[in-house]
Amino acid sequence: MAERIAIIGCGAAGATAAMQARKFNRKAEITVFNTETYSQYSRCGLPYTISGKVREFDDLILMPPDNWEMLKIDAKLGVTVTKIDHDKKELSFEGPDESGSLEYDSLIFATGAVNADPPIKGLDKDRVYGLRTMDDAKALAKEADKAKNILIVGGGLVGMETAEAFHERGLNVTVVEFLPNILLAMVDSDMAEIIEGHCVEHGLKIMCNSAAKEVLGDKSPRAVLVESRETGETEEITADAVVVATGVRPVTEMAQSIGVETGPTRGIVVDDKMETNLKGVYACGDCAEHVDFITGKPMAGGLGTVAVRQARVAGINAAGGDERFPGIVGAKVTKLFGLEIASTGLTENLADRFEVKVKKGSVRGMTKPPYYVGGKEIKVKTYYDADEGKLVGGQLVGVEDAAMRLNAVTVGIQAHMTAPEFFDFENCYAPAICDTWDPLVTSAEAARKRLRM
Amino acid sequence: MAERIAIIGCGAAGATAAMQARKFNRKAEITVFNTETYSQYSRCGLPYTISGKVREFDDLILMPPDNWEMLKIDAKLGVTVTKIDHDKKELSFEGPDESGSLEYDSLIFATGAVNADPPIKGLDKDRVYGLRTMDDAKALAKEADKAKNILIVGGGLVGMETAEAFHERGLNVTVVEFLPNILLAMVDSDMAEIIEGHCVEHGLKIMCNSAAKEVLGDKSPRAVLVESRETGETEEITADAVVVATGVRPVTEMAQSIGVETGPTRGIVVDDKMETNLKGVYACGDCAEHVDFITGKPMAGGLGTVAVRQARVAGINAAGGDERFPGIVGAKVTKLFGLEIASTGLTENLADRFEVKVKKGSVRGMTKPPYYVGGKEIKVKTYYDADEGKLVGGQLVGVEDAAMRLNAVTVGIQAHMTAPEFFDFENCYAPAICDTWDPLVTSAEAARKRLRM
Repeated sequence: MAERIAIIGCGAAGATAAMQARKFNRKAEITVFNTETYSQYSRCGLPYTISGKVREFDDLILMPPDNWEMLKIDAKLGVTVTKIDHDKKELSFEGPDESGSLEYDSLIFATGAVNADPPIKGLDKDRVYGLRTMDDAKALAKEADKAKNILIVGGGLVGMETAEAFHERGLNVTVVEFLPNILLAMVDSDMAEIIEGHCVEHGLKIMCNSAAKEVLGDKSPRAVLVESRETGETEEITADAVVVATGVRPVTEMAQSIGVETGPTRGIVVDDKMETNLKGVYACGDCAEHVDFITGKPMAGGLGTVAVRQARVAGINAAGGDERFPGIVGAKVTKLFGLEIASTGLTENLADRFEVKVKKGSVRGMTKPPYYVGGKEIKVKTYYDADEGKLVGGQLVGVEDAAMRLNAVTVGIQAHMTAPEFFDFENCYAPAICDTWDPLVTSAEAARKRLRM
Repeated sequence: MAERIAIIGCGAAGATAAMQARKFNRKAEITVFNTETYSQYSRCGLPYTISGKVREFDDLILMPPDNWEMLKIDAKLGVTVTKIDHDKKELSFEGPDESGSLEYDSLIFATGAVNADPPIKGLDKDRVYGLRTMDDAKALAKEADKAKNILIVGGGLVGMETAEAFHERGLNVTVVEFLPNILLAMVDSDMAEIIEGHCVEHGLKIMCNSAAKEVLGDKSPRAVLVESRETGETEEITADAVVVATGVRPVTEMAQSIGVETGPTRGIVVDDKMETNLKGVYACGDCAEHVDFITGKPMAGGLGTVAVRQARVAGINAAGGDERFPGIVGAKVTKLFGLEIASTGLTENLADRFEVKVKKGSVRGMTKPPYYVGGKEIKVKTYYDADEGKLVGGQLVGVEDAAMRLNAVTVGIQAHMTAPEFFDFENCYAPAICDTWDPLVTSAEAARKRLRM
């Protein structure tokens, strides 16, 4: 049994791995290193510190430093691991108050990801930000009091949530998205268009199929030069501040330095035990590459839910246990200006990329029965593989009950349900809640017919 | 292939059976008989005509009479089937405008259920009501303008929804429940107590473990004599009007007259094709007895969702198809004074009755992450059979997102998931929606430990 466990990184993955290792093994010596000085905080909560839906920055701290002591875990905050000698199973670390070395039996990489800055000129100016860390959020919250016009490069989840937050604070917000629609890593184009319409109606300016070329201005931005990818025409969009949210890349340098392998997604390759190619060395969270639940093909997580589930497995196994991670379904959800957007499993794009032939059931329904006041429109799509008819994905967009409906699809995917089986799903029904045939079920019915099942 | 299909009853079951038969078989001659003069309406929506959440009675009509013509279905409304000669495959019917006989190849009983009046004296007075039909609802809606004090006998779903509706109209409402808690056909006692507390806080008077003995008064009620089942003491509860909502019994007399068998729940016994012991004779909805999905033991539906699913199978099979009904999970949900109450599969009571040994996972969680403003408390229980650890039930109570969470449990039950599998469920997560480990998942974790799986 591993008696000395070292964990590099203290985000959702690192902190969960440490806690789960402790739960499983009361005697192990557990050390967590975090380059940031903060103890574990919710990264996904950061945009909401701008809008005030998270009241205080400290509210985001999920693991108060005292708790580490209680758990008898040595959390070295503000301390960076600088070198690993894996032959000796020893790592070196440096911090402002403390530097030294530590021997380990098991090692867990939970090094996360960093912003992958795109090739845009002028990103080195003041008032140009990413939103990945607590310090990023603190800086951006100040911009909310100062800036009038803000431009967000990237219409993914972080970009859109940040755009909403600034809009709620009264700023003029422009989102510049390189692809033809926002949120394409999450939903199909038709769904994205509904979302875009909703956000524009609420006051966002969204420029899709557009490349931010250069941040213009002296020390700080005055405008951003944006090029239409369709026409090639450029336009200057006024901006006092810029947020770059064009995705992340996994942090793997330290792992690679000891011979840990990375895969096609650039993450650290792990097996179902979250173990790397080196025995006793694990990885979890945003730095790791596991597999897509449906196809078994390499996939990065990039989700808090995936990070904590992988970390649980890594932590327990590092401490001598025997747990398995089942693969990444990729359930994603957000809420923008009251609109719930939910997606799980394969989208059309993802199915293409993984070469899965799919059939879909697509319906527009109502969240409640037609006779009951206040029901809202909801658009639902479910996807099934064309060969066996197994449920492989689902997307929902609506102003109520889209996200929670998604969970039923995810369970169906994880249970390998077919379209006829999902059609047999006995959804709950009451006039105040939803109708006898839920739109999820009617989407399965539509797909079932196409599948001739 | 059956060319002449007769359907007795035009509630959710009868109307669905007719439509599905037509969808499957364009040539069949389909006749639906309804003793009520209304075309198909939503029975579950009736309480909401009192509160105004359903604006007009006509809004409840789900199948406008013209649609029958369009579907080339002969809907005989206000017409009663008086006799069936199954040897000749001929039935007789009587109505105000039309009487006669009809030959059939297939026959579907969708005769529903009627209120089972309990042994209470004085139920024959004026202003004493059931709530099963459109006419009941119309009469009750008038009481909302007239009565000051109303007493509801029976704290089941119909009783509680009716109580809420009258309370919203400003009446003093007392619910008298014979059992120790309300809603015990749906939830365990601990959940019922949360609901009772919530309803009392909102102004309902609830008397549990209490028997309504007699409706006092002359022509109409002045009070109801209620006896405490604990102390035997009686009390007069002032009431201008009384609603009796103590459950229903299936209507099977006509079916029995031709030799169709009923079962221990008093419903018409059907197989997975919804066929009775007589070939070509089907039953569906509240008059039918199928089986519990989990145990395969006899079970009455009594739910709109079950009725339409059974009716779809009966209708298609009566028209020459070959569909199967998978059994009744029994997903139930309602909303009382903003509190969502959801239950699926086996409750503690039901597990006892069916002699299933269960282990549970019970947690109190929050609907949203702790750092995000506005999350609400939710109580979640999931049940697993003690032998194999398979998911067999779930209950949720909370002011948001309880009902939609239930659907994930139902899918898990229908997919025969075990506790470890349900624990692996990758719930969706976003600060504005819910946390990384959904309470559903932590309930599975708690159960998993008890099951030692």
